[in-house]
Amino acid sequence: MKPFRLQFKVRDYECDMQGIVNNGVYFNYLEHARHEFLLDQGVNFAELTAAGIHLVVVKAELDYKASLTSGDEFYIEVLPERPSKVRFAFRQTIVRLSDNKPVLTALITGTSLNASGRPYIHSDVDKVFPQT
Amino acid sequence: MKPFRLQFKVRDYECDMQGIVNNGVYFNYLEHARHEFLLDQGVNFAELTAAGIHLVVVKAELDYKASLTSGDEFYIEVLPERPSKVRFAFRQTIVRLSDNKPVLTALITGTSLNASGRPYIHSDVDKVFPQT
Amino acid sequence: MKPFRLQFKVRDYECDMQGIVNNGVYFNYLEHARHEFLLDQGVNFAELTAAGIHLVVVKAELDYKASLTSGDEFYIEVLPERPSKVRFAFRQTIVRLSDNKPVLTALITGTSLNASGRPYIHSDVDKVFPQT
Amino acid sequence: MKPFRLQFKVRDYECDMQGIVNNGVYFNYLEHARHEFLLDQGVNFAELTAAGIHLVVVKAELDYKASLTSGDEFYIEVLPERPSKVRFAFRQTIVRLSDNKPVLTALITGTSLNASGRPYIHSDVDKVFPQT
Repeated sequence: MKPFRLQFKVRDYECDMQGIVNNGVYFNYLEHARHEFLLDQGVNFAELTAAGIHLVVVKAELDYKASLTSGDEFYIEVLPERPSKVRFAFRQTIVRLSDNKPVLTALITGTSLNASGRPYIHSDVDKVFPQT
Repeated sequence: MKPFRLQFKVRDYECDMQGIVNNGVYFNYLEHARHEFLLDQGVNFAELTAAGIHLVVVKAELDYKASLTSGDEFYIEVLPERPSKVRFAFRQTIVRLSDNKPVLTALITGTSLNASGRPYIHSDVDKVFPQT
Repeated sequence: MKPFRLQFKVRDYECDMQGIVNNGVYFNYLEHARHEFLLDQGVNFAELTAAGIHLVVVKAELDYKASLTSGDEFYIEVLPERPSKVRFAFRQTIVRLSDNKPVLTALITGTSLNASGRPYIHSDVDKVFPQT
Repeated sequence: MKPFRLQFKVRDYECDMQGIVNNGVYFNYLEHARHEFLLDQGVNFAELTAAGIHLVVVKAELDYKASLTSGDEFYIEVLPERPSKVRFAFRQTIVRLSDNKPVLTALITGTSLNASGRPYIHSDVDKVFPQT
């Protein structure tokens, strides 16, 4: 499978007083890339939410390797992993376009809950994260 | 002159508990469109900032006509105006792509200050906003 | 009636590359002050939303008079107005604590819609904005 | 040493379409708590930045244990750690006030760079993170 990639450009309001993208903003970038990846796989986050199925993050691990700044273009690569039956994960890498430098690597682990707050993996989600 | 247009797609983290894009986020969209418009005209906001020239907003008027929601694609049109010698303005319209509906119209008025906080319109900025 | 006031402190992630609070962040401040004002008047925004009643902004007018920066403390004053039967408004002023300087004045006009998207002013909201 | 604690209240614009605080917002909360902790210890992030000393995050590990929602009040506890000579860390816990439930635990590791991008731990920062 060819890895899913989504391209972005830094917006100036995302930069902080250090003149670089604020640490917290990367989490927004990563979330948007995950949702677009899921959409590409036939899973619509907003529709699931409206149906009472909540995909939630249980663990986030981010390694910051370089900074993005005003004007930078970059892509985020998303690879699915399946750590357990009720957990799914996204291995994500942010790569700066100008020099192909990895700026951040992340492993985001999530689960899926139904309206009662119990683990519930919808079959469409299950298919995206094959168990090994 | 053909109006400047920049295309966007709503990101899910920009939606609030009403399931629609939060009011404040439109200001971020508008700012990004203004900075890209300026860049297209040869004015780099980040470089001006680093040189001690601060473009600041003095007045913002926004009319909300409809809502954007998850997955919506839209463009922002930017038209420059020049209300006075030391003020420049951006007439901006957000248009939803699916039905060409104007979602928001805005008039953002700004000025430019030097490091001492005095009005100072750099010649590159001056050219973008011709006086009538 | 004593005007409603809510105190804040600037958070560093709210500052942009100019080293001052980003223009768009003031919308967030103003929204939070409005919701706390409504709560103080017995109107819970989140509960209304869950009940399918959507308070929405139709017009925002902001005058920026000075900048807030890292560490600044300030309060927001909120005064209700009633421009028409189906519209209510909030006159808001942001005042810096260190020198009592007004940093921003705003007039935010909203309406209330039911699940079908039709104007519907709940009696609890109606009471907060007396018609003259 | 008594652990540093900072109290917050959820703001509605921080909630997403799931009606809970968006995952990325916790990064903002944590950063604000770190900067206030540093300030309490005599280290001013904004002044360091202005002096060309950049405190940067190199690793963020977050465990999400529960969700915060509209109206929730919580505090963040911050404990300093010193993993190595050129790295310092913050062990942070977000605790909901209503039931004392830990909502999130985090370990944020950072370093300090000078204007040339080389590791440089200012003596004021060094004192906050004692080496064992």
